[in-house]
Amino acid sequence: MVARTVDLRSDTVTKPTETMRAAMATAEVDDDVLGADPTALQLESEVAKITSKEAGLFVSSGTMGNLISVLVHCDIRGSEVILGDNSHIHIYENGGISTIGGVHPRPVKNNEDGTMDIDSIEVAIRDPRGELVFPTTKLICLENSHANSGGRCSSAEYTDRVGELAKKHGLMLHIDGARIFNASVALGVPVQRLVQAADSVSVCLSKGLGAPVGSVIVGSKSFITKARRLRKTLGGGMRQVGFICAAAFVALKENVEKLDGDHKKAKELAEGLNQIKGLKVDVAAVETNIIYVDIVEGSKITAEKLYKNLEEHGVLVMPKGLSRMRIVLHHQISSSDVHYTLSCFQQAFSGMHQENGSYSISTSRDVSYA
Amino acid sequence: MVARTVDLRSDTVTKPTETMRAAMATAEVDDDVLGADPTALQLESEVAKITSKEAGLFVSSGTMGNLISVLVHCDIRGSEVILGDNSHIHIYENGGISTIGGVHPRPVKNNEDGTMDIDSIEVAIRDPRGELVFPTTKLICLENSHANSGGRCSSAEYTDRVGELAKKHGLMLHIDGARIFNASVALGVPVQRLVQAADSVSVCLSKGLGAPVGSVIVGSKSFITKARRLRKTLGGGMRQVGFICAAAFVALKENVEKLDGDHKKAKELAEGLNQIKGLKVDVAAVETNIIYVDIVEGSKITAEKLYKNLEEHGVLVMPKGLSRMRIVLHHQISSSDVHYTLSCFQQAFSGMHQENGSYSISTSRDVSYA
Amino acid sequence: MVARTVDLRSDTVTKPTETMRAAMATAEVDDDVLGADPTALQLESEVAKITSKEAGLFVSSGTMGNLISVLVHCDIRGSEVILGDNSHIHIYENGGISTIGGVHPRPVKNNEDGTMDIDSIEVAIRDPRGELVFPTTKLICLENSHANSGGRCSSAEYTDRVGELAKKHGLMLHIDGARIFNASVALGVPVQRLVQAADSVSVCLSKGLGAPVGSVIVGSKSFITKARRLRKTLGGGMRQVGFICAAAFVALKENVEKLDGDHKKAKELAEGLNQIKGLKVDVAAVETNIIYVDIVEGSKITAEKLYKNLEEHGVLVMPKGLSRMRIVLHHQISSSDVHYTLSCFQQAFSGMHQENGSYSISTSRDVSYA
Amino acid sequence: MVARTVDLRSDTVTKPTETMRAAMATAEVDDDVLGADPTALQLESEVAKITSKEAGLFVSSGTMGNLISVLVHCDIRGSEVILGDNSHIHIYENGGISTIGGVHPRPVKNNEDGTMDIDSIEVAIRDPRGELVFPTTKLICLENSHANSGGRCSSAEYTDRVGELAKKHGLMLHIDGARIFNASVALGVPVQRLVQAADSVSVCLSKGLGAPVGSVIVGSKSFITKARRLRKTLGGGMRQVGFICAAAFVALKENVEKLDGDHKKAKELAEGLNQIKGLKVDVAAVETNIIYVDIVEGSKITAEKLYKNLEEHGVLVMPKGLSRMRIVLHHQISSSDVHYTLSCFQQAFSGMHQENGSYSISTSRDVSYA
Repeated sequence: MVARTVDLRSDTVTKPTETMRAAMATAEVDDDVLGADPTALQLESEVAKITSKEAGLFVSSGTMGNLISVLVHCDIRGSEVILGDNSHIHIYENGGISTIGGVHPRPVKNNEDGTMDIDSIEVAIRDPRGELVFPTTKLICLENSHANSGGRCSSAEYTDRVGELAKKHGLMLHIDGARIFNASVALGVPVQRLVQAADSVSVCLSKGLGAPVGSVIVGSKSFITKARRLRKTLGGGMRQVGFICAAAFVALKENVEKLDGDHKKAKELAEGLNQIKGLKVDVAAVETNIIYVDIVEGSKITAEKLYKNLEEHGVLVMPKGLSRMRIVLHHQISSSDVHYTLSCFQQAFSGMHQENGSYSISTSRDVSYA
Repeated sequence: MVARTVDLRSDTVTKPTETMRAAMATAEVDDDVLGADPTALQLESEVAKITSKEAGLFVSSGTMGNLISVLVHCDIRGSEVILGDNSHIHIYENGGISTIGGVHPRPVKNNEDGTMDIDSIEVAIRDPRGELVFPTTKLICLENSHANSGGRCSSAEYTDRVGELAKKHGLMLHIDGARIFNASVALGVPVQRLVQAADSVSVCLSKGLGAPVGSVIVGSKSFITKARRLRKTLGGGMRQVGFICAAAFVALKENVEKLDGDHKKAKELAEGLNQIKGLKVDVAAVETNIIYVDIVEGSKITAEKLYKNLEEHGVLVMPKGLSRMRIVLHHQISSSDVHYTLSCFQQAFSGMHQENGSYSISTSRDVSYA
Repeated sequence: MVARTVDLRSDTVTKPTETMRAAMATAEVDDDVLGADPTALQLESEVAKITSKEAGLFVSSGTMGNLISVLVHCDIRGSEVILGDNSHIHIYENGGISTIGGVHPRPVKNNEDGTMDIDSIEVAIRDPRGELVFPTTKLICLENSHANSGGRCSSAEYTDRVGELAKKHGLMLHIDGARIFNASVALGVPVQRLVQAADSVSVCLSKGLGAPVGSVIVGSKSFITKARRLRKTLGGGMRQVGFICAAAFVALKENVEKLDGDHKKAKELAEGLNQIKGLKVDVAAVETNIIYVDIVEGSKITAEKLYKNLEEHGVLVMPKGLSRMRIVLHHQISSSDVHYTLSCFQQAFSGMHQENGSYSISTSRDVSYA
Repeated sequence: MVARTVDLRSDTVTKPTETMRAAMATAEVDDDVLGADPTALQLESEVAKITSKEAGLFVSSGTMGNLISVLVHCDIRGSEVILGDNSHIHIYENGGISTIGGVHPRPVKNNEDGTMDIDSIEVAIRDPRGELVFPTTKLICLENSHANSGGRCSSAEYTDRVGELAKKHGLMLHIDGARIFNASVALGVPVQRLVQAADSVSVCLSKGLGAPVGSVIVGSKSFITKARRLRKTLGGGMRQVGFICAAAFVALKENVEKLDGDHKKAKELAEGLNQIKGLKVDVAAVETNIIYVDIVEGSKITAEKLYKNLEEHGVLVMPKGLSRMRIVLHHQISSSDVHYTLSCFQQAFSGMHQENGSYSISTSRDVSYA
């Protein structure tokens, strides 16, 4: 029997708070397909304001937000998008931009910090004079924070430089901002500054911010008009959608301030795990709420056994390949959960474990964590 | 100033009931993308049971339900679907099956009752021996009740015959059941019987049943597995989606029994409108909750003026072309609303109108309505 | 053993003439992908001149010509094309505009003469105000002469009216002119007049004109620039293509004048076949080189037996459905072949046959046909 | 005025030989769309034999050959192909596999020799357990010789290892063999051995082999049946195509033996260019008929001026980026042309030039190159 559950697989697993439920219960709603739902309009307007863009559109997921954004910018047959070879869009979205949208991706190598070299991006831009054999580069996509690099953040200056490059070549710039608030908090830079150079941003509310459902994409009015139409084409138009928008609005208002705590807990957990013989974490790379943990070669325990062992104690992590796991913090993971998790990992590697979860960092493993 | 509003544009405009709000407030939810939301699972299971299919999948709209269904059945490049030339999929879904899915539509003439002649369907099925120049017919789509024919219903026997034809040629059969419950109630035949021959059905819960958001598609387990993946590709995977599923579950439990009343009110309204000189309604064709009203040539009032006049009195209808309008009844349109609406129409054509809405059917036009 | 072969399946089966072979043997050629093949340029320029369009592009088939034309006009995701429900593009081109191009077709009923009612076309044009649920109408396609209607011709005036409608709604007009020279000859109207209203035309040189391979599409310079790029995308760019262009040039120069003879022979054959008890031909509808022949119900011979019997005598026809066949005349079918064919048909229905083909129309026609 | 022209831009610029013209003049042809052209069948059969595959299909270009092959293997929506990030398919074919075929590319880094690391390929193969967010890997593409790496060759053993990996994961293996004969000659290994592990190969006949037009794709009978249909969809079905097949057949018979000479001349030219101060060539990397030449930084002459200067002397090369050019040898470049070319380059860098092209490598090389 599992004494407690600490779900660290993703920050999408949070449960709605009481204030969210209350907001939903009293939300004013109407037919959003007819453009009449006041709560949806309010949320869209709020995210547009936060990002300093003209308009916003609620969509049911980050994947839909990215898909619509890429397809709107690449609306002409023969378009190509430059994006990170380790980006969420390229790796985790079913290849939808091609398989559904017919857009050709031109991946550029993601550095360890999630950026792409500016020079490499420029080289990848197609020369229009070669259009007989080249697709037409229309769009550059960034991702901030960058999930597959362990939630690392790109600076406003970096984004500006990509934006200048895009402008120089007549390209659009989209930012996958699934965790843009994490980046903003970690960098101490307002969201609107981080996305200043972007023509569109997809902002997720159901990851670290803890909304039950949804993302908002923002951009120019004309971009959003096209996006609204494409959302309908995909079947993403929802009727009285204000209920979930009401909860997302609460997430936006109440949970941004919790992100800093998530980042601190992530750092603490990362440091703790890195102390365990058999595990390796690049602690300095833990800039936000994501940790990548490697099981070092020759470890006493196999990855499979480790996950099984952890699961038996209610600790859920996300395997990534054969010897790597991903751990994601969020506002419903307490300090106690962090300590309990460390204890479970340690036990798995050492054979001892405090079943009651009353494991105290000060008396037992605090030294080794330091 | 508008004394009251009677929104007859669609049955999608209903507001959630108190029981729906209550169900949402207490819904148990989890991450549905990870397959863990109990309320979503319960709703999917319930609709599968009602339709006697193996499994179900919640989707955010009828359009997404149809899009996913067609694309799953037509998963191979070069597929063709036979569907009504006046069907919702062909006319009102942005051409998504082609523009997003690359499926070639082969429309067959819809009869006035929304059916297609069996012979015409058979002629449209491609001979595999001609595959060098023909796409491959993979799917037949029906729609029941049929929106563009004025909500008319197809019998179980008709559907069976199409199903037999499909089987004979190795084709799949999908039913756009956006209003299948209306058809079931009007025909007095259980839903599961009406869709017995179908390999997949898209059932909408946010039309006549009044749920805030959503449809459920049903079919075999393997169909639903593929549908789930495609839903993710489209960005239709939602996290704690149980909230809206909870409301949809209430819609399913409480509102099916209200449909018969909607149909009766539709009939009464249709008869009333048909009595007005200048309007024409095929009253016999009003089988469910949809009415098509034609403004006869030489009428004293133009369509534009009529809509303006009605709108000033809070009566909203849906123009369809130059001289036709669509009126849809639903459970939040009362008998009083019907009488008020008739009064507004009559006034528009006659110049007199009872502003207070206390228009009494017994003293003015009741004889002619009866 | 087959004494002779009369291949009436299509006008694509002609063999190149000696002058074509001679032209090929001496053709000046270069790399056409690099835009340097003089013979290709000459042919493209000639067809552009004949059709009074700015520029032309050689493509390997009529199907490629239509595919490229539709895709260039419908270059934005979400485009719709209005075309005949019995048109070659809709029926015989693998649904490529959707399955390869993602274009949504909106078929309109083809009349018996191959035209579509102007009103029906106008009704099918999508109202831009409904763009949330409608694809965007971008293009109307006509076909002249119209293969599936038996090669019937549309007048210049009809085409002009469709062109005016297209202009009024900001649409493009494409003509599938696979057999536009047949239409021109039959109507006694120059090709350029017949296509005056069109933004693009696909002209086939390997049907009635007898070139071994190829079509030319014509339109504005900017249309052709886009078409050239798309041809490369499809893999239709060919290197020293001038060889086949040289033969096509000869076809254009020498064979237009033979079409009138084909039409006369078609008429004669149609009349002859219609005299045979058991066959039915709408002789008046035979305006060019195509004949549709129906085997009347209750005929003594089944379609299958008839085709087998004909084939044994070297006469090849194209079955269309269960009791209809298509017969196509071309410049390599002589008068003698026509008489022989009639004799073979008659024999099949009567049991007698003149094996030597010396059947004389002047002395025996009435008797033998009866 | 240009005294002579030495076109080194590509091996596609060759002119047909007299034997090719003669073969065309007498070729037996028929309607290949109906499968009846004997010369096309002969060529397809011959290439199938050379590659030891079941069947072949003539296509109008290498691009079409690759496009069809990828699309046939990736016939289901949601397919992904692993291919080199510097491969011809990814860089020079308009992104057609995505923009026309909806296939998602997963590029893997090409090494300098044109191979991809086996481990990198394996990592890129999608785990089917992640199918909710992953596309389905269906195909691996190799290219041999590899154009963008300077025509370098992959060994049969390397290809075998990729083939084993493909088999292990249930994937198909396609080889872009645009210059497979060059690889075969350079490695001294028969073509059939080099493609032994492949499920399909695209073999180009209009590059080094000098045919005017065309490629042949080979594979299993069922692959070719699907390919034939897709060729028709793309509009690549040609009628009396035997003419160009006849020339291609001659290319296959007569020109393979000339490739070794091309390679030797390429080596000689590479060595000569590398001697010029201001140019840099990796001579060891010149394994076949392609040379990449870099203009070193600080060179006295800009790339632009160099190309202009060369062009004035009739020497055409292909610029690749800002300071690199591509030079391709073929059977119509003589030793004298090589010497003339070297002389033109030298003159451009030194200011002196021997206009008559009588430059003799034996007497002046050391001096003039120094």
